[in-house]
Amino acid sequence: MPNGAQALMKTLVDAGVEVCFSNPGTSEMHFVAALDSEPRMRAVLALFEGVATGAADGYARMADKPAATLLHLGCGLGNGLANLHNARKGKVPVVNIVGDHATYHTQYDAQLQSDIETVARNVSPGFVRTSTSTAELCRDAVDAIAAARGYPGQVATLILPADVSWGEGAVACTALPAPNPAVADDAAVAAAVAAVRSGRKVALLLGGRALRETDLLAAARIAAHSGVKLLADVFPTRMQRGAGLPAVERIAYMAEMAGVQLAEIEELILVDSKAPVSFFAYPGKQSYLVPDGCNVLTLASPAQDTTASLEKLVAALGAGQAQPQLQSAQRPGRPRGKLTAAKVCKAVGHLLPDNSILVDEAITSGLMLAAMTAGAPRHDLITLTGGAIGQGLPNAIGAAIACPDRPVLALIGDGTAMYTIQSLWTMAREQLNVTSIIFNNASYSVLNVELERVGAQEAGPKAKSQLDLHGPVLNFAQLAQGMGVHSVRVSSAEDLVTAMQYALAHPGPHLIEAVVPESLSGAKRKILPWLLRAMPNLPQSVASALKRKLAP
Amino acid sequence: MPNGAQALMKTLVDAGVEVCFSNPGTSEMHFVAALDSEPRMRAVLALFEGVATGAADGYARMADKPAATLLHLGCGLGNGLANLHNARKGKVPVVNIVGDHATYHTQYDAQLQSDIETVARNVSPGFVRTSTSTAELCRDAVDAIAAARGYPGQVATLILPADVSWGEGAVACTALPAPNPAVADDAAVAAAVAAVRSGRKVALLLGGRALRETDLLAAARIAAHSGVKLLADVFPTRMQRGAGLPAVERIAYMAEMAGVQLAEIEELILVDSKAPVSFFAYPGKQSYLVPDGCNVLTLASPAQDTTASLEKLVAALGAGQAQPQLQSAQRPGRPRGKLTAAKVCKAVGHLLPDNSILVDEAITSGLMLAAMTAGAPRHDLITLTGGAIGQGLPNAIGAAIACPDRPVLALIGDGTAMYTIQSLWTMAREQLNVTSIIFNNASYSVLNVELERVGAQEAGPKAKSQLDLHGPVLNFAQLAQGMGVHSVRVSSAEDLVTAMQYALAHPGPHLIEAVVPESLSGAKRKILPWLLRAMPNLPQSVASALKRKLAP
Repeated sequence: MPNGAQALMKTLVDAGVEVCFSNPGTSEMHFVAALDSEPRMRAVLALFEGVATGAADGYARMADKPAATLLHLGCGLGNGLANLHNARKGKVPVVNIVGDHATYHTQYDAQLQSDIETVARNVSPGFVRTSTSTAELCRDAVDAIAAARGYPGQVATLILPADVSWGEGAVACTALPAPNPAVADDAAVAAAVAAVRSGRKVALLLGGRALRETDLLAAARIAAHSGVKLLADVFPTRMQRGAGLPAVERIAYMAEMAGVQLAEIEELILVDSKAPVSFFAYPGKQSYLVPDGCNVLTLASPAQDTTASLEKLVAALGAGQAQPQLQSAQRPGRPRGKLTAAKVCKAVGHLLPDNSILVDEAITSGLMLAAMTAGAPRHDLITLTGGAIGQGLPNAIGAAIACPDRPVLALIGDGTAMYTIQSLWTMAREQLNVTSIIFNNASYSVLNVELERVGAQEAGPKAKSQLDLHGPVLNFAQLAQGMGVHSVRVSSAEDLVTAMQYALAHPGPHLIEAVVPESLSGAKRKILPWLLRAMPNLPQSVASALKRKLAP
Repeated sequence: MPNGAQALMKTLVDAGVEVCFSNPGTSEMHFVAALDSEPRMRAVLALFEGVATGAADGYARMADKPAATLLHLGCGLGNGLANLHNARKGKVPVVNIVGDHATYHTQYDAQLQSDIETVARNVSPGFVRTSTSTAELCRDAVDAIAAARGYPGQVATLILPADVSWGEGAVACTALPAPNPAVADDAAVAAAVAAVRSGRKVALLLGGRALRETDLLAAARIAAHSGVKLLADVFPTRMQRGAGLPAVERIAYMAEMAGVQLAEIEELILVDSKAPVSFFAYPGKQSYLVPDGCNVLTLASPAQDTTASLEKLVAALGAGQAQPQLQSAQRPGRPRGKLTAAKVCKAVGHLLPDNSILVDEAITSGLMLAAMTAGAPRHDLITLTGGAIGQGLPNAIGAAIACPDRPVLALIGDGTAMYTIQSLWTMAREQLNVTSIIFNNASYSVLNVELERVGAQEAGPKAKSQLDLHGPVLNFAQLAQGMGVHSVRVSSAEDLVTAMQYALAHPGPHLIEAVVPESLSGAKRKILPWLLRAMPNLPQSVASALKRKLAP
């Protein structure tokens, strides 16, 4: 008879959970020892739990099935919380295995004792369970996996006391049935049809699973047939885009812009999404971004099958034969001269390989990325779903493990990179095909913008120093080398292009540190042209409205 | 009238909270803007929240008053949780200011929305409050500060919605009265006196605040007068030691050893401590380490004044004129040859400056540290109170800010260093007088020991790889340089001594990477001589018992 950990290992892989991103401690030693009992389980060590959880998130986004994490009690879970938050907000399946003290040991309140369930509820409100017997452990694990990979996907946390893990007499559970989500019912489809045919301005807002090719094509057929506008969530979990796919405009991060995008919409149809709200609140500004008088209706909730629901709407509208408008192939030219963040985005658009995975956590430096890569070869885009920075590098690890044959490009701000910089070591250890481009502008640049936006006037030197990463300026090329990742620091567009060409031609991890000025330095008036350039297809009327709105 | 943030700033400094370790985001921008309204508040930026919380912990251990942290919503708090856990277990006062969305914004469940109070309860069970009005904010802050700096010290979390921060009409609160903890009552003192005079073997177990000079001297008078044994918590929050102070034996980390230390004790008197338990549970081994038949009694709980309570016991015993036994001054010689972890500890003992602060998170590599520094000039020792690794470097930041005139030495394992490696940047930015010595043995060495101890036999290659930090080996000297910290990598004792002498002669941060073999490689039989050497004053009978117990 296997012990608990061995049976759990078999149960996990039988259910398709074949990768474990781990940062173990003593209470997880039996789980670690059991790794060798199950050749199908791949264990990937991280030096910090936020790397493990973010990698599990990135893996699931690309593999469409959960990985496990292995975390050390409440503190390990705490360290992993921010990226689990991002997974939760992205509706991404993750199975946390959190080791705990032996059940009989908790009464002594030893040093590492804390209330794990309390912490876990923050990120896995739908499933937190402490397994209390070896005999029931695999049943608990199956429930956790089922919860994680349901519709919507979620983070499930299984707390595994050490004695439950080392106990004998466990029985592995057999595989789970695949989830079988519901399709939009007739009433929802009829309501959507009525909205589309109402003569009012209609938009389909796509999120979650509705940003993959099949769904996008269905939505684009509806758009071509009925003149409906297509919008995407501001921070998509995973979005397929590029030449040959329908181009969908993302809701802008800045509420002022999002308000403009939505200003004329009278019927907003949600597909695995929610009515747009401002990322943060600002004094005197609206949090809810849907215009007054706009009717919001749901075609498919996150609990439903978006593909089948969209196809049902296509059929109901008679749009099956409509020709979807597809993005034409077009790349920007090769950038030249002193490097700027926009030129980095241009270089990415110039060189992005076919079928690559683009991880965008570049914050202000990435403003031009969407425009510059719109007509690049088709690729998957992964973004910061929960706003907890430090997601990008770990996501890149997971994406590279899920898709070993696809190049991964991670575009990361300097501030964000430092939260989970330990990711580089795992990239080196696993020899992952990831090229990380770090925008080093020596600033929490977005916070300089936010400082103005919240109306905190006349910031003094102490305030400004809190947003400033000078003194000393980080050297990411050195940090990468210290963790075994090949790296180079560039400050001209020519050197960047050379470095990218080298990295893309030589598999294995690379880091390119792009030394750039701040994209959004100066006052609000300088933001406007940037915003407009970031959305080149904005209709003139919208651009004018935006100019009026943002004028000082 | 000031806004909420400005009044809060004044309230904090009026109550002695004069340093804020911060990692802000948009929802904290008004707090950041208010920094310039209060010249007495020092703001120290961290690139990761675990650095901020660990620095606040280290600061309070040395300053004997809380610092504030400034954290960004639930995810920022999550990132800071592990070091707040260590503070909680160390009974260290910390005031968390956790920014939140504006009160009216939470209903929209925006990207960064999560249940902050849920997370906060894990580390601040005694005080979590969301301030809901600007008018009441400073009252809430005063309550938080009072909770933090009470007896016992604790982590208090004040959640600060953005609109409460930016709202007008706040009123700063005046300073708090100092806490006034109770003294051991007559019954407790009489019980302790009876125990001491019982003729049974008695030990005083000192923890928390009872490991400072005045308390140690009182305890040592009792020991000299009555033959009582003195013991200290396994992981002291802060312990004053070295030449001229009473030497107190710490309870060992390993339960096998602790059991031997406690084996003959029949009366255990607690002073701001608790009855010893095993750090982890192990199959077939006891969790509760107090021997059967030993009577446990409390002289002073963590809620009481240990100094006055010990003095009361001294008086009751008539021990006031007893001469406490004090540690004589003695340093080990200069180490030579190929570097080992023990030689690093020897070099520290050889060179430790008077009045320094020693932060010990060296795990297995630090086994010889206590023995090697026992007779060094007097110093404060800070250890890993909660077992959540990644504490040492942040603690060193806080200690250096609390005590700018004292040299800080941080001895850190390679695995542990990586959890909060971003600390180095803050050390450089603030030009702190910290010398960090990283033991690079390319291993989670303690876990190799634990893997055996938990009885997980026959570890295979996958299991072992989870504890192995080779491939690639980290280069901490490069990591330090990438964050602006002067660094050197050494592998001989001579080079180490030279590097330490240079670092100690030149203020400002330094990092010395000590490349060493694992201290505890090989099987259990090799552990024994190490353990014995780490406790040179062990009586022969105890050493023999230990040998029998640990024999294979």
